[in-house]
Amino acid sequence: MQTWFNTDRPLLLSGLRGRVVVLAAFQVLCPQSIGAGVPQAQRIYDTFEPKDVAVIGLHATFEHHDAFSAAVLKAFIHEYRLKFPIALDQPNAASPIPQTMERYKMRGTPSLVLIDRNGLVRKHAFGPVDDLRIGAEIGALTQETDAVAPAQSSAA
Amino acid sequence: MQTWFNTDRPLLLSGLRGRVVVLAAFQVLCPQSIGAGVPQAQRIYDTFEPKDVAVIGLHATFEHHDAFSAAVLKAFIHEYRLKFPIALDQPNAASPIPQTMERYKMRGTPSLVLIDRNGLVRKHAFGPVDDLRIGAEIGALTQETDAVAPAQSSAA
Amino acid sequence: MQTWFNTDRPLLLSGLRGRVVVLAAFQVLCPQSIGAGVPQAQRIYDTFEPKDVAVIGLHATFEHHDAFSAAVLKAFIHEYRLKFPIALDQPNAASPIPQTMERYKMRGTPSLVLIDRNGLVRKHAFGPVDDLRIGAEIGALTQETDAVAPAQSSAA
Amino acid sequence: MQTWFNTDRPLLLSGLRGRVVVLAAFQVLCPQSIGAGVPQAQRIYDTFEPKDVAVIGLHATFEHHDAFSAAVLKAFIHEYRLKFPIALDQPNAASPIPQTMERYKMRGTPSLVLIDRNGLVRKHAFGPVDDLRIGAEIGALTQETDAVAPAQSSAA
Repeated sequence: MQTWFNTDRPLLLSGLRGRVVVLAAFQVLCPQSIGAGVPQAQRIYDTFEPKDVAVIGLHATFEHHDAFSAAVLKAFIHEYRLKFPIALDQPNAASPIPQTMERYKMRGTPSLVLIDRNGLVRKHAFGPVDDLRIGAEIGALTQETDAVAPAQSSAA
Repeated sequence: MQTWFNTDRPLLLSGLRGRVVVLAAFQVLCPQSIGAGVPQAQRIYDTFEPKDVAVIGLHATFEHHDAFSAAVLKAFIHEYRLKFPIALDQPNAASPIPQTMERYKMRGTPSLVLIDRNGLVRKHAFGPVDDLRIGAEIGALTQETDAVAPAQSSAA
Repeated sequence: MQTWFNTDRPLLLSGLRGRVVVLAAFQVLCPQSIGAGVPQAQRIYDTFEPKDVAVIGLHATFEHHDAFSAAVLKAFIHEYRLKFPIALDQPNAASPIPQTMERYKMRGTPSLVLIDRNGLVRKHAFGPVDDLRIGAEIGALTQETDAVAPAQSSAA
Repeated sequence: MQTWFNTDRPLLLSGLRGRVVVLAAFQVLCPQSIGAGVPQAQRIYDTFEPKDVAVIGLHATFEHHDAFSAAVLKAFIHEYRLKFPIALDQPNAASPIPQTMERYKMRGTPSLVLIDRNGLVRKHAFGPVDDLRIGAEIGALTQETDAVAPAQSSAA
C-alpha cells in the first residue's frame, strides 16, 4: 500500500495490535462494492469506537487498470464522504492481482477481512455480508481478552 | 404472557440463563414493527445459534384492543413465516399497558430488550435499531463469561 | 362492498366515468400487500390528480376470515395513514372468494385492476408491480380521449 | 457529444422525432447518479419499447475533470451492464460546464430531461425522481398524437 487518504501516514497492522481490524477491499466501478461493501465499511466506522475497531479501506482491482488513478479515488472519497483511512493498492509486477489483495488471498471485490486484537486473520468474506452477522463477529472479537500472541500465521 | 406460538410450552426467563435473550415487542398493525422490528427479530433468530441466543417475540398493544385476537396473531405468524417463539401479551386490568410491556418499561412498539446470560437487562430500545449495532451488542454479550449472578435488578 | 373508510359514501364505478380507476386489493396480514401493494396504492393516490385518477382500496381475503373485522381494518388505515377510499369486501355465501374479488376475477392479494375512463377493465395484475410500468400505464390511460362507450364487457 | 457507447454511431435528436426521448445525465462518482439516476435510466430502457421511447445517457461533470476518461466510462458501462446508448459529454473551452449540460441548462447530476415526439423539451429534473411520476409522464407523452412541429424552442 502506498497512496493513502484520510490519514496522515500509512497504517501498519503492527501498529494496530489491541484493536480489531476490518480490512474492506473495494473498487469504485464494482456495483456490489458501491452498493454494499463501501457503505457497510462506513457504517462499521461510524458504529464502533476507534479504540476498539480500526476500519481500513483498500482500493484494489484485477482489471481496468488504465481507468484508475489516485485522482479517481480521491474524487470518489470526496463525493461519498468517506471518513475512514483508505489505501490505493499497488500493482504487482508479477501478477494481475495487486499486492495486498494477493497477500490476504482476496478473490475479488468487495472483500472483507477481520483481524483480531492479536493480529490473526479470523474471517475472509467475498461478496456482500449481512450487517447483523458482521456486527456480531466484530462485537465478539472486541470482547476477547488479550491472548499471548500466537507464534505463527500472524498477519504482518 | 399466556398464549404462545412456535413453542410447546411457555418460556420463562429463569429457564434461559446462560443464553443471551432478545425480547422483541411488536404489534401487527404498527408500520415500524412490520417494516423493521419483526423482520429483524427473525434475522437475529436465523443468525445466532439457539444455544447462544434466544429470541422471544411479544405481541403487545396500547390501543386498538378490540382489533386483536389470538386468531389475528396466529394468521400473522403463518403469513410471515416466523419461526421464533411468540407470546400474546396479557391485558392489564389496572392499566392500558399490557403486563409484560409494563414490567420491562417498554414505551411502545417496536421495542427490543437485551438480557444477558445472567438475566440482567442490558439494553432497552424503542423504535428501529441498526442491524450492525444490535449485532455487535448481541455478539459481545455472547462472549461474556458467566459472572456471579448480581444480587439485584435481575430480570425475573 | 359495504363498509367503507375515507369516504362519506360508498363509491360506484358508474360514478367515476371520465376518470382512470385503480382498484387495489390487499389483506392486512399479507406480506406483499403490506410491503408493496398498499404503499404503492398510496403513492398512486399522492402522484395523480383526483380529477384524473381514482384510487380505491379493497380489503379482501380468501382465508383467516375469523381474524378480520372492520375494527382491524380501521386500526390498520389509521396506523398506516392511508388517505384513499377503502372498502371491506363482503364474504360470499356461495364461495370462499369474497364478492368483489370474484367479480374482477382476482387471484389473491395484492391485486391491481386498471379501469379506463369509459369503465373498461384494461389490466389485471396479481403480485407486486413495478412503479415505472404502472405509472406508464396509468399515465397513458389518462391521455385517452373519451371514446363512445363500448357496448359490452364494461365494468359495472 | 463525441465518444459514444452502446451505439454504432452518434445519435442526433433530429433522428429521434416521433419517439419520446429520455436524456439522463450522470457522473460515475456521484452517489445519487449511481444509486438512483443510472439504474432508473436502465429501468426506463427495459420498460418501454424502443419504437416509443429512446433513452440516452450522458456522462457529464463539472469537476474532477482529471479523474474521468473514456476508459473509466467504458469500464463503468461494462460493470453495471448498461445497455442504452451513452455519450461522454465534451468539455467546454469557455466554461466548466460541459457542452450538452449547458445546452440543456442542467444544474448537475443526476439530471433528467424529457423531450416529446416533436422534439420539444417538456421536463427538466435535477436530483432523484420517483419512478411512478416519471413513468406517468413518459406514458402520457407516448400517447400524444403528432402535432404540427412548433416553430420555436425545439430541441435541435
